[in-house]
Amino acid sequence: MTEPVLPKALAFDVFGTVVDWRTSVTRESAACLAAIGRSDIDAAAFADAWRGQYIAAMIGMRKSGRAFVPLDLLHREMLETALRERNVDPTGLDDEMLADWNRAWHRLDPWPDSVEGLTRLKTRFPIVTLSNGNVALLLAMARRGGLPWDAILGAEVSGFYKPDRQAYLRTAELLGIAPNELCLVAAHHGDLAAARACGLLTAYVDRPDEYGGAPAPDAHHEQIWEWSASSLTELAGQMGC
Amino acid sequence: MTEPVLPKALAFDVFGTVVDWRTSVTRESAACLAAIGRSDIDAAAFADAWRGQYIAAMIGMRKSGRAFVPLDLLHREMLETALRERNVDPTGLDDEMLADWNRAWHRLDPWPDSVEGLTRLKTRFPIVTLSNGNVALLLAMARRGGLPWDAILGAEVSGFYKPDRQAYLRTAELLGIAPNELCLVAAHHGDLAAARACGLLTAYVDRPDEYGGAPAPDAHHEQIWEWSASSLTELAGQMGC
Repeated sequence: MTEPVLPKALAFDVFGTVVDWRTSVTRESAACLAAIGRSDIDAAAFADAWRGQYIAAMIGMRKSGRAFVPLDLLHREMLETALRERNVDPTGLDDEMLADWNRAWHRLDPWPDSVEGLTRLKTRFPIVTLSNGNVALLLAMARRGGLPWDAILGAEVSGFYKPDRQAYLRTAELLGIAPNELCLVAAHHGDLAAARACGLLTAYVDRPDEYGGAPAPDAHHEQIWEWSASSLTELAGQMGC
Repeated sequence: MTEPVLPKALAFDVFGTVVDWRTSVTRESAACLAAIGRSDIDAAAFADAWRGQYIAAMIGMRKSGRAFVPLDLLHREMLETALRERNVDPTGLDDEMLADWNRAWHRLDPWPDSVEGLTRLKTRFPIVTLSNGNVALLLAMARRGGLPWDAILGAEVSGFYKPDRQAYLRTAELLGIAPNELCLVAAHHGDLAAARACGLLTAYVDRPDEYGGAPAPDAHHEQIWEWSASSLTELAGQMGC
């Protein structure tokens, strides 16, 4: 088996791949649910329900032809839906409290290996985001968590949400390289499959705790990727960093 | 006189403000001119002529309605024009040599205070580019020079070249802040005047050597800006970093 040619740049999925959204959002939601007197609601299930609307929201955006909407706004709409499903009327809550609850997505903790792995990979490759998160969200997350991105790219910059082909192709174009010179790093087989269909190289990072041990919704897209690692530090080693 | 309210983020002009384009482009052009047997051409004057087409090119782009074109491509066109003006036919030169000569703009050295100044400012403020340079160019320059940007924004991301109002307003929008919460840092009075007209805060950094001691072409736009400093380290001190 021949070694794959190394890419000229690495583009990272962020939610789930670099940061542990579930633990952070569960922790912040537990505090907020307590503050509104609803400690009876399971915070981890609430986090799952909040995030769970995400894929449907993306599909809805594309079908409706709705122009690009920052993920911050979608998160707010999904937060209010998750509350209503639990018989909490968001219009009765303090708006600034809801806004801060929503900014839990700006304060996601990196997985324990992420900062070291990215720092090592950055010594050899430009490292950029390729996320559906908006710039303000990703920038705040990076500053808080110490994620050393060379550039914050992705849906808001390309104008297309993953898994639209243009999200991947436009990112390579912005970097001035061919699609097959760019490698997507992601914990999600569906994302990697879409990137491969556009000609990108692919690196899988296993994050078995992303869904609290529950199976990933896109497991059926699993393929043999150019790289496969259990952490970003392991991937750095595989890529000679 | 009351102190201005501190901004929530800083956006930087890059060419001339953070990096010394003239010294770097002169040095690389001298080597290339020697390589093609034209050491008789003054390299500093050549660099000035190359850069000098820039403002005209921007105006031409806007008037013609030409879609956004990466600065890399404009630089290449301007390089060929500068050569033709000196009776050098670029079609007779090696294409890879010309491409590398053009990438001199990816390899501009920071001013001596830039890395320390940016690093100090970054401790308190998100620091982003607001340049007409394209992403690939600015990313390569940052990696080579150690410029610690939080995000690379500007013309290619906003879709508008400065001094178009949308270049400034869209950058604030991407950062999730109001125009008057964003401060443009620039060595150019014309750029600062356009930013102020959009409601941004303004910080002037004096770079008397940008044009090799020749007067700046936009001196007539000079105003009293919210901050004014002779280096990015001095600006950091003024902003409490």
